[in-house]
Amino acid sequence: MKSFRKELWFEIPRRRQLTNITDEVSKCLRASGVREGLCLVNAMHITASVFINDDESGLHHDYEVWLEKLAPEKPHSQYHHNGAEDNADAHLKRTIMGREVVVAITAGALDLGPWEQIFYGEFDGMRRKRVLVKIIGE
Amino acid sequence: MKSFRKELWFEIPRRRQLTNITDEVSKCLRASGVREGLCLVNAMHITASVFINDDESGLHHDYEVWLEKLAPEKPHSQYHHNGAEDNADAHLKRTIMGREVVVAITAGALDLGPWEQIFYGEFDGMRRKRVLVKIIGE
Amino acid sequence: MKSFRKELWFEIPRRRQLTNITDEVSKCLRASGVREGLCLVNAMHITASVFINDDESGLHHDYEVWLEKLAPEKPHSQYHHNGAEDNADAHLKRTIMGREVVVAITAGALDLGPWEQIFYGEFDGMRRKRVLVKIIGE
Repeated sequence: MKSFRKELWFEIPRRRQLTNITDEVSKCLRASGVREGLCLVNAMHITASVFINDDESGLHHDYEVWLEKLAPEKPHSQYHHNGAEDNADAHLKRTIMGREVVVAITAGALDLGPWEQIFYGEFDGMRRKRVLVKIIGE
Repeated sequence: MKSFRKELWFEIPRRRQLTNITDEVSKCLRASGVREGLCLVNAMHITASVFINDDESGLHHDYEVWLEKLAPEKPHSQYHHNGAEDNADAHLKRTIMGREVVVAITAGALDLGPWEQIFYGEFDGMRRKRVLVKIIGE
Repeated sequence: MKSFRKELWFEIPRRRQLTNITDEVSKCLRASGVREGLCLVNAMHITASVFINDDESGLHHDYEVWLEKLAPEKPHSQYHHNGAEDNADAHLKRTIMGREVVVAITAGALDLGPWEQIFYGEFDGMRRKRVLVKIIGE
């Protein structure tokens, strides 16, 4: 069994942004040499997400509006976590979007459906944060 | 290490429906010959979900009502994704329900709790769509 | 390839509670002898969750308030699942929080970010329930 590990680092210049990382994950897969296996991609921070959906700007606008409706940022005073911090909403938004994806590896490629793209979802940016790519297989 | 891959195809005759696919996933596992490992089951489309919960019609009704409350289909004009499409709500509903499940394989069987059943959640049906089953182990 | 399986049992003395299980999962990993691989941790019951977030009491209070807003327990009569049962809200709350996490194993340790902690989220307690830890790797 082979294994491969890499951290992808990000410093998003705003509080919230969705970034397509499919190509970077594919590069990890090629570097791993794995042909059949599983690829775990997870946020290493608890106010960010890795998820799979469509790379379409209208939909990304809809996500922003929808997440603000379900877990609004302000007023900060509505959250107890904000005793010390102002990012409780980012923990909740990431909970909806999910921490991780597991992607099948088949014949040396990410085994994705026709519109599946992997995203890094930042909900508390303007600092250096990272994503873990872990690949196991043969 | 063994690996196994199969696509399960669906054409759901309505927009939204939850379909129990536990038996089909179990058949994949038997075909794989894997006794110990992991089984990934994921929607290959971004308006559908694979999730685990109870096979109980009252609860499935509750899911329908609840998802329509959190991410209503209409009016379509509330979503920017609907510039070209009318299924933004399906992307959001699937986000709540999740893209994938990873199930342990123990002694050649899906290692599920007493009420755990695997479902395909369709939120934009009336077209052919598929689920990926990927199994690795020994 | 090595594999390891253990059930963690819980009897939470109230309906809802978040319990940090990171140390128990780490013990499983040490017992497995796996150095490189993947660790699946999933609730075996469909009214409970395994998720990763911060071990901070203010945030845990925020989760309780937020989940009650998105999927309120009462009135029980609002749910069809409550024909026979009073825990429909627990199925919905667990859906938001997620069934499982997959954690990378690197150099014999859980490969977690600086604030990542693994939690058992109980939403229908006062009974014996369990979590599955399944580890594969080498």
